[in-house]
Amino acid sequence: MSIDEIDTPALIVDLGAFDRNIAKMAGYVASAGIGLRAHAKTHKSSAVARRQMAAGAVGQCVQKVGEAEVLAAAGIPDILVSNQVVDPRKLDRLAALARGATIGICFDDLDQVSLASAAATKAGVTLNGFVEIEVGMARCGVAPGRPAAELARRIADAPGLRFEGLQAYHGRAQHLPTAAEREAAIHGAIGAVRDTQEALGTLGLEARTVSGAGTGTFRVEAESGVYTELQAGSYAFMDLDYAAIAGADGRPYDEFEHSLFVLSGVISVSGRDWFVVDAGLKSYSGEKGPPRVHRADGWTFLGMSDEHGKIGLSAGSARPKLGDKVALIPGHCDPTINLHDWYVGVRNGRVEEIWPIDARGASR
Amino acid sequence: MSIDEIDTPALIVDLGAFDRNIAKMAGYVASAGIGLRAHAKTHKSSAVARRQMAAGAVGQCVQKVGEAEVLAAAGIPDILVSNQVVDPRKLDRLAALARGATIGICFDDLDQVSLASAAATKAGVTLNGFVEIEVGMARCGVAPGRPAAELARRIADAPGLRFEGLQAYHGRAQHLPTAAEREAAIHGAIGAVRDTQEALGTLGLEARTVSGAGTGTFRVEAESGVYTELQAGSYAFMDLDYAAIAGADGRPYDEFEHSLFVLSGVISVSGRDWFVVDAGLKSYSGEKGPPRVHRADGWTFLGMSDEHGKIGLSAGSARPKLGDKVALIPGHCDPTINLHDWYVGVRNGRVEEIWPIDARGASR
Repeated sequence: MSIDEIDTPALIVDLGAFDRNIAKMAGYVASAGIGLRAHAKTHKSSAVARRQMAAGAVGQCVQKVGEAEVLAAAGIPDILVSNQVVDPRKLDRLAALARGATIGICFDDLDQVSLASAAATKAGVTLNGFVEIEVGMARCGVAPGRPAAELARRIADAPGLRFEGLQAYHGRAQHLPTAAEREAAIHGAIGAVRDTQEALGTLGLEARTVSGAGTGTFRVEAESGVYTELQAGSYAFMDLDYAAIAGADGRPYDEFEHSLFVLSGVISVSGRDWFVVDAGLKSYSGEKGPPRVHRADGWTFLGMSDEHGKIGLSAGSARPKLGDKVALIPGHCDPTINLHDWYVGVRNGRVEEIWPIDARGASR
Repeated sequence: MSIDEIDTPALIVDLGAFDRNIAKMAGYVASAGIGLRAHAKTHKSSAVARRQMAAGAVGQCVQKVGEAEVLAAAGIPDILVSNQVVDPRKLDRLAALARGATIGICFDDLDQVSLASAAATKAGVTLNGFVEIEVGMARCGVAPGRPAAELARRIADAPGLRFEGLQAYHGRAQHLPTAAEREAAIHGAIGAVRDTQEALGTLGLEARTVSGAGTGTFRVEAESGVYTELQAGSYAFMDLDYAAIAGADGRPYDEFEHSLFVLSGVISVSGRDWFVVDAGLKSYSGEKGPPRVHRADGWTFLGMSDEHGKIGLSAGSARPKLGDKVALIPGHCDPTINLHDWYVGVRNGRVEEIWPIDARGASR
């Protein structure tokens, strides 16, 4: 089937660009001597996870137990919930997964340690405990240094838990506009990790794993010498939010290629200087701004509503015909992917694969 | 099950508020002598559609053929696709539905008429054709008056199609800040309908149905004497976007109550003056701004990421415990509902019903 025959709206992956993104990151982490624990909150798909694992990833990150369940069922052997889980029912579900896979979980509170320990003990498994340290993101995480080390001690002492390492992800750093700002933020995170390692040492503990980093900063963490694995996710697809930051040379960030698009179809050409496509807020997320027309040729995205996208024609630009296909680059890949049930993989204009988004909606 | 036992994040309907919203609109349209064709793009659920129909709605609106398929399978007898459909495969699917239900479709282009006529003829059915007129929304629609009447003539003459009436929805008017601005915009739309009716008369045609209006303006259309049915959808749930407009008295718009919430659970209390819940951009849409904490008590929503919501504590406000439940009012109900697979209906703090969101993701 050609790309022009795909029923719209559809979530499209340019397999050439996707393969190059996967290979570039895999080559980089291999040369840097660091692991890649790719973040499944982005792709929500065991098909993508398997491709990342085949390219050498050490495991996958998830944010939710429901995502871990999907990946574990697909045979992913090593999964870290890079997030806090406190509901006993969720912890029971997570502990059950540890019978067949290595399962990690993050902590920033002593009460969580008791709850997770109880679930792991009941299930007869061991969960890998990570202390999440606050590295400048101001969201979850305990203070680095002594407070983090003390929490690690409690994890190490808790039945059913094993202290594995540190979660040190700086989400806010990923989208700081300049490379210098991002680097400065991550240097702060690196300092927080070092302080915590020192404090761990005084308690006779060691962080075997230090996990963090994203698509906007991964080289800084990788070159720090303190991080042992990277949690990038968007690198496989890219989006406008990452395209908007500057690279080290001041030009737009181009470490990775746009491989993800929402394919739309033209449904109305009655506008004087605009036309309308069939993809709106139920096909891409809008909180980082509207999508951009791929290979625009004078077409500017003007407005998004639930099921419509309005695209402006500049003077002299070609007018589309009803049914023409228009590829849109989403503003933010993660919540966009979560709106769809499958990816359509396209190579050289032909449909080659369909990948189920089997963790779509798995937010519990 | 009590509301505190619901696994989070979850989409919650306060059944008391929902019932009052449904009853208020049903009572209003009955007294105004106008039909309610409630918009299913909002609720995406045959369970909600059935409740609206039981309260006297004349039918349902949808934006997509996939939504029409879900409603038709659930026995909804009268469905209008308030949108353009141009893909022949979609038109075949829509025509198939017309064997068991009354199906309407909107036109703003002559080519669409040929395509829909071919599909209807092939299926041996009749589709009700609506001419969508441009009433100030600047999206789809033909110019009112003569151009609209000429398109109606072509629909009336096309095999398999029947000219039924006009689609005259002014989406932009719904969220204009003051009642006076909304009223002025809708008066423009009413004028466009009148001009078109006059032009239709000169061609020997009549619009039996004039459909339009939304939650922000429905009284103006209803009192116009030219609209025959209202397409409101959000009225059943409300959201922050509608709560932000002013009512006729200048105070916040309170025609309807908030009945829709995203129930979240507290997963981190390590922040100095904030805490974190487990609901983010995959549980509510963010393009109209962040959600608001329901019954806030000094809690202010500060930030949303994929699976986290950060909520600030003001001086003196209570600190929550891990696992506490926090209800959030979404910024925009339609794309929020589309993220979920079911509604949890709650009355007096107890779970009473689960309604599948069976048209979730039905964007094709």
